[in-house]
Amino acid sequence: MAADASLNAIPDGILAAAEYENHAANHLADSTLAWLRGGSGNEYTLRANQQAFQSLNIRPQLLNNFSQASTRLKLCGTKLESPMLLAPVGHQHLLHKEGELAVTRAAEVSATCLVASTMSSLTLEVIAEASNSAKWFQLYWQPRREDTLDLIRRAEGAAYEALVLTLDTPLQVLSHRAQRAGFAQLKSTTPANLKDYKPLPQRALAPNQSILLHGMMSEAPDWEDLAWLLETTTLPVIVKGVAHPDDAFRLQSMGVAGQIVSNHGGRSLDGMPASLHLLPAIRDVLGAHYPLLLDGGIRSGTDIFKAIASGADAVLIGRLQAYALAVAGALGVAHMLKLLRDELELCMALAGTPTLNDIGPQCLMGAI
Amino acid sequence: MAADASLNAIPDGILAAAEYENHAANHLADSTLAWLRGGSGNEYTLRANQQAFQSLNIRPQLLNNFSQASTRLKLCGTKLESPMLLAPVGHQHLLHKEGELAVTRAAEVSATCLVASTMSSLTLEVIAEASNSAKWFQLYWQPRREDTLDLIRRAEGAAYEALVLTLDTPLQVLSHRAQRAGFAQLKSTTPANLKDYKPLPQRALAPNQSILLHGMMSEAPDWEDLAWLLETTTLPVIVKGVAHPDDAFRLQSMGVAGQIVSNHGGRSLDGMPASLHLLPAIRDVLGAHYPLLLDGGIRSGTDIFKAIASGADAVLIGRLQAYALAVAGALGVAHMLKLLRDELELCMALAGTPTLNDIGPQCLMGAI
Amino acid sequence: MAADASLNAIPDGILAAAEYENHAANHLADSTLAWLRGGSGNEYTLRANQQAFQSLNIRPQLLNNFSQASTRLKLCGTKLESPMLLAPVGHQHLLHKEGELAVTRAAEVSATCLVASTMSSLTLEVIAEASNSAKWFQLYWQPRREDTLDLIRRAEGAAYEALVLTLDTPLQVLSHRAQRAGFAQLKSTTPANLKDYKPLPQRALAPNQSILLHGMMSEAPDWEDLAWLLETTTLPVIVKGVAHPDDAFRLQSMGVAGQIVSNHGGRSLDGMPASLHLLPAIRDVLGAHYPLLLDGGIRSGTDIFKAIASGADAVLIGRLQAYALAVAGALGVAHMLKLLRDELELCMALAGTPTLNDIGPQCLMGAI
Amino acid sequence: MAADASLNAIPDGILAAAEYENHAANHLADSTLAWLRGGSGNEYTLRANQQAFQSLNIRPQLLNNFSQASTRLKLCGTKLESPMLLAPVGHQHLLHKEGELAVTRAAEVSATCLVASTMSSLTLEVIAEASNSAKWFQLYWQPRREDTLDLIRRAEGAAYEALVLTLDTPLQVLSHRAQRAGFAQLKSTTPANLKDYKPLPQRALAPNQSILLHGMMSEAPDWEDLAWLLETTTLPVIVKGVAHPDDAFRLQSMGVAGQIVSNHGGRSLDGMPASLHLLPAIRDVLGAHYPLLLDGGIRSGTDIFKAIASGADAVLIGRLQAYALAVAGALGVAHMLKLLRDELELCMALAGTPTLNDIGPQCLMGAI
Repeated sequence: MAADASLNAIPDGILAAAEYENHAANHLADSTLAWLRGGSGNEYTLRANQQAFQSLNIRPQLLNNFSQASTRLKLCGTKLESPMLLAPVGHQHLLHKEGELAVTRAAEVSATCLVASTMSSLTLEVIAEASNSAKWFQLYWQPRREDTLDLIRRAEGAAYEALVLTLDTPLQVLSHRAQRAGFAQLKSTTPANLKDYKPLPQRALAPNQSILLHGMMSEAPDWEDLAWLLETTTLPVIVKGVAHPDDAFRLQSMGVAGQIVSNHGGRSLDGMPASLHLLPAIRDVLGAHYPLLLDGGIRSGTDIFKAIASGADAVLIGRLQAYALAVAGALGVAHMLKLLRDELELCMALAGTPTLNDIGPQCLMGAI
Repeated sequence: MAADASLNAIPDGILAAAEYENHAANHLADSTLAWLRGGSGNEYTLRANQQAFQSLNIRPQLLNNFSQASTRLKLCGTKLESPMLLAPVGHQHLLHKEGELAVTRAAEVSATCLVASTMSSLTLEVIAEASNSAKWFQLYWQPRREDTLDLIRRAEGAAYEALVLTLDTPLQVLSHRAQRAGFAQLKSTTPANLKDYKPLPQRALAPNQSILLHGMMSEAPDWEDLAWLLETTTLPVIVKGVAHPDDAFRLQSMGVAGQIVSNHGGRSLDGMPASLHLLPAIRDVLGAHYPLLLDGGIRSGTDIFKAIASGADAVLIGRLQAYALAVAGALGVAHMLKLLRDELELCMALAGTPTLNDIGPQCLMGAI
Repeated sequence: MAADASLNAIPDGILAAAEYENHAANHLADSTLAWLRGGSGNEYTLRANQQAFQSLNIRPQLLNNFSQASTRLKLCGTKLESPMLLAPVGHQHLLHKEGELAVTRAAEVSATCLVASTMSSLTLEVIAEASNSAKWFQLYWQPRREDTLDLIRRAEGAAYEALVLTLDTPLQVLSHRAQRAGFAQLKSTTPANLKDYKPLPQRALAPNQSILLHGMMSEAPDWEDLAWLLETTTLPVIVKGVAHPDDAFRLQSMGVAGQIVSNHGGRSLDGMPASLHLLPAIRDVLGAHYPLLLDGGIRSGTDIFKAIASGADAVLIGRLQAYALAVAGALGVAHMLKLLRDELELCMALAGTPTLNDIGPQCLMGAI
Repeated sequence: MAADASLNAIPDGILAAAEYENHAANHLADSTLAWLRGGSGNEYTLRANQQAFQSLNIRPQLLNNFSQASTRLKLCGTKLESPMLLAPVGHQHLLHKEGELAVTRAAEVSATCLVASTMSSLTLEVIAEASNSAKWFQLYWQPRREDTLDLIRRAEGAAYEALVLTLDTPLQVLSHRAQRAGFAQLKSTTPANLKDYKPLPQRALAPNQSILLHGMMSEAPDWEDLAWLLETTTLPVIVKGVAHPDDAFRLQSMGVAGQIVSNHGGRSLDGMPASLHLLPAIRDVLGAHYPLLLDGGIRSGTDIFKAIASGADAVLIGRLQAYALAVAGALGVAHMLKLLRDELELCMALAGTPTLNDIGPQCLMGAI
């Protein structure tokens, strides 16, 4: 309840990673909790992300030999011990006083790749210094191209292994839930990474022009901007927010190194399909061997299994990361990741699939 | 609660157009609210109209350039700033003391086309005089053809730009909800437009004839009446209440200028499908370039987007108009329209569709 | 509540035929109400019968001329003013002190065909004498063929126009609801029609034989028995309880005059589909011009419309008859029938179908 | 409530086999009840097992002659009076003080085949001595092959007629419900059958190896182990836990005598489909004449009918057996089996299917 009640001790009785959500309510102010849990609009997409996993059933196979079992994979050049990454989550000082440093420590302990956010409370350099494990940098397009370039060069300099360009929310949308709860912490804060960048002068609009369509959207990137980005950096560029198979095909053709199916966790366009339901059509156009990740709705190791069976190579863990951080800092995040991994391994054992390559559509059966 | 508590000030905390419904309960007598919110029968169609929108998901596209973005269109000769019109709503003095004049003012301020109702509290001439913006006249067929003709000539004389012939309720049905709440205001009132027209003498029925099928239905128009109407006026005639593709085809062939898919807001035949679900088959028979509108269930800009993606050129706003009128008069209606338009623009921005022509079936994915 | 509180006055405020159900609770002992409302097993089929109607939507057509409108039809030689019959309901003295005589009066006043039950509280002769309108006799197969023959001859002698052979419940099943409520009135009663017939001597079963499969089922009729029946009587024979298209085809081929799709109102095999869902496949095998009726789940005139659109020529009204009888005797039943007919006529007017022949699958659209 | 309140008398008012579940709550400690009723994970599969039966409807046929009616069948050489077996349920002393002996008595009285569990409270020899009726032995693979072999030889020696090899839970999973209720009775108990077998010495794992995937799964059997088993015994081997048609085909080809579709009653991989939904595809690959059973979700005779119509030859009764045992010992189990059989016979009578061979897909219609 009180924000300072955050612990660095794991609460008793947590049997599953998903249970961190309920405990988080004891460690966050109501308005922060509303911001964290809420989605845009009527929260249709927020709910759909989780419910989608119930629409798929797993049909196990028997008697397979597990002596060569493994959850390892290599993704865009990065080696992963298991098919999960820590999703970019901004403003982590609102969740725990150690913020991104706690998550960085948990990532290292559990050998999990971290995707640091443009909107992090600490600079990308501070995060990189604190970390010895694999990390990617999540990039928000900046109003001035020179600022975007600066962010890229800084990420390259700090040894991030890939850039994750977020495109699923050309405009930032604050949920009604957060607005009603009086959440206002972000208004007065400039994220640490962006302190030296200045906003554009206000754009003059003609009488018939829309603030939204002509004002704000003039700062969103387009296909040309992406082409420039791909030429500018030597890091692999991964696009987050892909929903349409036509876009997936075009991005692959342009040289994008990997893609993340995402609806921004139900925080952008309310009415988007669940991430899980978007996957199969996109895997179809990309072919079997192109890196594809899923973000949105993962609450258990069984969910991870279903995402992989539906076409993902790996998944991003967003809200569960935030809940565990709020509950018990680095220890909480590490424990949550351990639970998720145990759940995935149990699911693989019971489904009879010793390696990630054994998990595919043949393991699934639509729920009736 | 008390009918005279109507404000001309926007209540605090309204974040979405849909929220006007809840506020309306504070500004209307219970029986009037029951009349306004209720639908016929078991209110199946009333609920279906809104729920249908949840059966469709939007699949955004990325990186499209918005420098030429626009929500404008031209419909049956009328220029619209955005794809929404104010639906014909009768008896507006029951909702706010300024009634149709408030709505007319809001229409002008927000450059929205108004469809004035035959059943309005004020005459079509008074409404027309108060207005400088585009307006259409909604026509109910009168028992005597000379009275129908008189209404047409009056609408032509008052510079209405089109006639909207309502056919989705050959009989007026009062909802059980309104009957139970004791709503009786309409019994003793003759609408202003019809003051000079006399009812037909009571029709003598044979012993085996039905008051309903042979009495009341004898005053409903048929295909011959429509042919006469089309020859009689030079205004474009738009038919409201189309549900069957066969009718849509025949109406188009006869020279009807546009059509509105509608189930009278769930106030006529309970058991009709949601308007949204009727759209695609009707668009199919009419071809891509014939004016087609949707009436029924719109509560947000995202709903408008889905209607357009399903085949509509524009939508009519009925109950939201009435709720906003009851809450805050002209200011309320203008504010509600502004919210709807902002919601539509946000949806277009997030869906990656800069113009109405970019919105189509490829943007949709059925909910699972 | 008290069984003697039955009225012969219509309660205030009844706006729809379906509302008689709620009022019935005020006029029946709890155990009788449990018997009347209950279904077998988990009451799955009981609920499905009603819910099925919500799975169909009506898509109206516009501008049709109603000058030749009519709800009349001729069915197995009997002329009907509207497409509904009073279903066979036994033991009516448990519902109202005037029992079958009240229903007979209501049938005559409203020109509705009555199907008198083998299990009626009064003999078929007493019912026939009290009635001047069309009536059919519902036949339960008797353990002794000579008793079945006697019932047939009595029905012929009393001027019944058709025999309705009930086959949907080869065994009588008392609902758990009625058992739990302590309903026991039927145990000690022999129905008036069967007073002179003696039970068979108890059948000796071998040790491995089942009381149910070999004992009770030995008294159920088979295909040979039906062949005998068809040769024995000159009355048209209508079979009630058809569910499988193969049976429908065989019955038609044997010379059965008409069929009733029925699951015994959810009082026989729990787990049967809703009657409405059984209709289309059966109409398909029977062709367009063979008499087919629906029994089960009708609560409104719109339900009747949907049944006809799904392939029925007419429907039977069972529970609504019983509820109205309990509430207000002959007056209640007549009023309920009037409401149903008004509801059907309103539905036809709004759907644009002037006659029963205009109602067909083209009027329907599956609910989504 | 109190564990010692177990009765040997049937409670009043039980009208259906399914009702034993509610009564069991009065006879078991809360933690034991949680263990018995619970499923793994979110209990999705536990619920699905029962709900699946509601997705199928039964379409009866009329007028079939029942003089040769029968519920008998022969399965893997064992003659059954009706198509149900008592599923293997371990640790029965937790449910009733007479444990497996009570169930053995009930099996004999009702001529039902018993499948004795490896995990039974009493040894397989004690159970066999107490029984004169047909029985099979359920085999869990043991960490040492010589112990598995010993169990097989003991079962052969004690005149069990078949071996049921359970493969649907390579790891034992305790439900969250049981953990939360503090259920711990199994930790300190070695089942009677396994008293003389010693655990393997703890396996040394490399740093990157998983306790679960490399440690625990190294003790699970694989295809080679099964081949050995089939060569080792002359008893028919039936595999329990088949879910995938590919496995079903391979098992049949290897000489497995019969198969049981099962998800371990929702106690193993949460997210598996309902057993009923797995059946049809597996029956398809196995052909019509190969022994196939269903385990999971049976609560009534109608459920048994639907399982047979979906492709099963017979079903296993697990939880209902345990509930009835807890409520009234041998008498309870015998009564529950009698109710199930009566329900099945009633269903067959009402569905018009005199023998098990008459029950097939043509009796079913998907629920809408």
